[in-house]
Amino acid sequence: MAVLFPGLRATAKWLKSQPASPLAAFGGGIPSFNMKPSMLPQHAALGHIRLVHAAGDKSRPGNGTGPRRLPFATVNEQDLDYFRRLLPGRTITDPDLLQSGNEDWLKSVKGSSEVLLRPQSTEEVSQILRYCNERRLAVNPQGGNTGLVGGSVPVFDEIILSTALMNQVMSFDHVSGILTCQAGCVLENLSSYLEEKDFIMPLDLGAKGSCQIGGNVATNAGGLRLLRYGSLRGTVLGLEVVLADGKVLNCLATLRKDNTGYDLKQLFIGSEGTLGVITAVSILCPRKPRAVNVAFLGCSTFQQLLETFQCCRGMLGEILSAFEFLDSACMRLLEKHLKLVNPITESPFYIVIETAGSNAAHDEEKLHNFLETVMESSLVTDGTVATEDAKIKALWAMRERVTEALTHDGYTYKYDISLPVEKIYQLVTDMRHHLGDRAKNVVGYGHVGDGNLHLNITSPTKDPALLAAIEPYVYEWTAGCRGSISAEHGLGLKKKNYIYFSKPPEAVALMGNIKSMLDPHGILNPYKTLPDNLR
Amino acid sequence: MAVLFPGLRATAKWLKSQPASPLAAFGGGIPSFNMKPSMLPQHAALGHIRLVHAAGDKSRPGNGTGPRRLPFATVNEQDLDYFRRLLPGRTITDPDLLQSGNEDWLKSVKGSSEVLLRPQSTEEVSQILRYCNERRLAVNPQGGNTGLVGGSVPVFDEIILSTALMNQVMSFDHVSGILTCQAGCVLENLSSYLEEKDFIMPLDLGAKGSCQIGGNVATNAGGLRLLRYGSLRGTVLGLEVVLADGKVLNCLATLRKDNTGYDLKQLFIGSEGTLGVITAVSILCPRKPRAVNVAFLGCSTFQQLLETFQCCRGMLGEILSAFEFLDSACMRLLEKHLKLVNPITESPFYIVIETAGSNAAHDEEKLHNFLETVMESSLVTDGTVATEDAKIKALWAMRERVTEALTHDGYTYKYDISLPVEKIYQLVTDMRHHLGDRAKNVVGYGHVGDGNLHLNITSPTKDPALLAAIEPYVYEWTAGCRGSISAEHGLGLKKKNYIYFSKPPEAVALMGNIKSMLDPHGILNPYKTLPDNLR
Repeated sequence: MAVLFPGLRATAKWLKSQPASPLAAFGGGIPSFNMKPSMLPQHAALGHIRLVHAAGDKSRPGNGTGPRRLPFATVNEQDLDYFRRLLPGRTITDPDLLQSGNEDWLKSVKGSSEVLLRPQSTEEVSQILRYCNERRLAVNPQGGNTGLVGGSVPVFDEIILSTALMNQVMSFDHVSGILTCQAGCVLENLSSYLEEKDFIMPLDLGAKGSCQIGGNVATNAGGLRLLRYGSLRGTVLGLEVVLADGKVLNCLATLRKDNTGYDLKQLFIGSEGTLGVITAVSILCPRKPRAVNVAFLGCSTFQQLLETFQCCRGMLGEILSAFEFLDSACMRLLEKHLKLVNPITESPFYIVIETAGSNAAHDEEKLHNFLETVMESSLVTDGTVATEDAKIKALWAMRERVTEALTHDGYTYKYDISLPVEKIYQLVTDMRHHLGDRAKNVVGYGHVGDGNLHLNITSPTKDPALLAAIEPYVYEWTAGCRGSISAEHGLGLKKKNYIYFSKPPEAVALMGNIKSMLDPHGILNPYKTLPDNLR
Repeated sequence: MAVLFPGLRATAKWLKSQPASPLAAFGGGIPSFNMKPSMLPQHAALGHIRLVHAAGDKSRPGNGTGPRRLPFATVNEQDLDYFRRLLPGRTITDPDLLQSGNEDWLKSVKGSSEVLLRPQSTEEVSQILRYCNERRLAVNPQGGNTGLVGGSVPVFDEIILSTALMNQVMSFDHVSGILTCQAGCVLENLSSYLEEKDFIMPLDLGAKGSCQIGGNVATNAGGLRLLRYGSLRGTVLGLEVVLADGKVLNCLATLRKDNTGYDLKQLFIGSEGTLGVITAVSILCPRKPRAVNVAFLGCSTFQQLLETFQCCRGMLGEILSAFEFLDSACMRLLEKHLKLVNPITESPFYIVIETAGSNAAHDEEKLHNFLETVMESSLVTDGTVATEDAKIKALWAMRERVTEALTHDGYTYKYDISLPVEKIYQLVTDMRHHLGDRAKNVVGYGHVGDGNLHLNITSPTKDPALLAAIEPYVYEWTAGCRGSISAEHGLGLKKKNYIYFSKPPEAVALMGNIKSMLDPHGILNPYKTLPDNLR
């Protein structure tokens, strides 16, 4: 099943004109197109196949809808000998030890890799890739394996290349705040390391205890501080990357400004390990703020929440570091599954506001003035403020632990949507109306400041009929607002075929050219990011 | 003359292994290599040829050292007919009108183009490029023509494609602060447009009265607000680009977050018009700060200036929006050539600090505390503060008009260097010592907050002996500190062959592959950005 939007003859033509690659693997080829009214021009869907597949099926995961295994070589004893010589004691073939590397955090995607490699150095990564490229062995680069779109685990028997042992800080400059480290450093460890030096990482995520900086960069992770410190495209100053053929690309600059030629590192940020393996990162870290405050507020309507956001940006200005929201459905899940206690009176919407600044008295005065304004104008119905670490953490948990609460509510269909901020909750409302009582829960939360909604729909069990009701509806709705069908999670395995809802065919074709240029044999993280019609 | 650093066998080998392209045009081919001690590994120089050339010489500009004209077609009457039909009244062939498009702002590079096109729409740009690509006519995209490295003017008879008439604002979203406009909008006009809406552009440059946003993005302009709002790689949210073959790449998203595939727009940011012509930009604009203060301070040593910077970052924190410096040599030029009056007592170094915040009382208190601290600890010897617009402008002029003052001091050799911040003034001191009385003036100014030094050396007239003393010394010095030989100006025509001082050969080779992929006939801004040995 596939959808074509009106005015998209060019797309269809373009798709049909693509040579039938020997690597083409879209469940039997490019699907046929049906016309579908009322959609945006310049966006096409290539079908909506959900790739949740069973373990151990090497030919075709899922119920016949997933990709076919591409004709890569299979790891043999000679290969294992080579790896064991190169990485003595760090070439893992024990099935029990492989288990966690084969399955994603959500337990929604499971590969059947039989070898996991744990290099410690860039040179080792280079030798692994050179060998695999010559042998046509597919490789799945893996960081903390916390991704939500099936990008971090093998689909078939790809070799897992884990960066877990590449966990050394290489340098930190106290004057400039520039940190240089290996890709496998865990985000939380880097945060602790910097905290002692009075700095912080420019990004923070719920997965910080496991996720690695290399994976963060490879997936262009967003998270909770983006509103204040901007995206990794600005804060990452340099990368070291090993290309598919083993060549080491050293762009590990530690300069804030460098306009000597094309900025190659940008190619690898957000490319989900499909263009190269990031082995080291240099990143600009902000000073640790002297004062942090968190407010947890309740609003009666989403319109009032938006007005509160506008007021907040004006009155808190440069000290605003996060403006997050969750709806009452999220709160019910937190209470039910995690026994968290709502710190304020029940409301349809909840806001988490964080301020971070250099002068506690100033920040408290700004926050006080803001709260007075929004309470007096009845934009906000109730609220509580924390300035102490423990209470700050408790308030943040109400937002950070929603993902965890959802895992206890049944099978979860997850969507990570970017929209014009004034539209982000309308999608939740429309979806609830659209699904009626077919869904157990339809909940919305996310980063208001970034226009990023996390829409989650739960069901007692996996439910193909429910899925058919959700997709392509959710993608069409998003494309209709010129939104992004993946704001921060990436495309990975699960979302790659929906790329045309957010990118025009010319752009996707160019992405394919870049992939072919950098990885001509397609060994790096195959079946991910790019749609199946490309390769 | 060329230099090779020790440990660079791989570089030499790589260079020698490059196929002799029919387009190779490095004044007679790749120069031979001499070994040079005491330099960093992984950086190689490909000679240092200064490309200041005379007008009208179509075969080889300069005194035999510039590039040769590549075998592009020459514009004929049929071509002009086509352009006149496509752009009636906007196909300029009058030599007087062509004059300003052929010469750069510094009057250091002059081309001999005989036609300048003024499209108004993306569709017109697309038709121009499709035609030129088929006809193998070279094209020089041109914005405000304010570049300092000869990137914005033709080298020979390239067709000038001016974006000047593409000057419409397409949309502005008051909630998100996202502006979408055509590439030819002048930066200052956009600033005025936004000011009325209580927003500002995230970048500000001395050239704002002429430079265009498309050119700003194409050159990844830095400027005076980078310290606060980050680089264009973070603030540019979307681009529309016309590729060499006329294809329109619509990545004009207006979303803060979008992780659907590779971020193609990054390829075009900073590629100096060599990969595509930017026709529209969407950019995230900050709220207009409610309070702005500027302090102009004097320091006795550069070490004290650096300590003032550290103190400033701690005490002004989130309201610090600029930390700029100039030395006493700059001040003398401002006084002599522009009759500006030093607002404080004479000092070896001067600092311009700007704060921008949401609460005037808080900002003034922070600034007051900071000034008290640095005066009491004798880090700063004298200073003055402005809060009113006119005085703020007057203080900023001391920093912004240094470039202008230099043009009155004789022939100027300009360098735009990125270094670890603690090293930025050592290069000026070392250069003064190195040149002795061969230079008229050696001055340093720039963006301390970004580690970006503008080193300028003046001479009564053009002086090849002086140039030979400056280069490659300045580049070797920079490479020795792992700095960038072009922090924000780009490479253009003048600096392209020095790229190996800041980028390893593998990276430059990959840039060449990207160029070949996107512009296989090399028609877009030829002779720029990439070194001559590549094409």
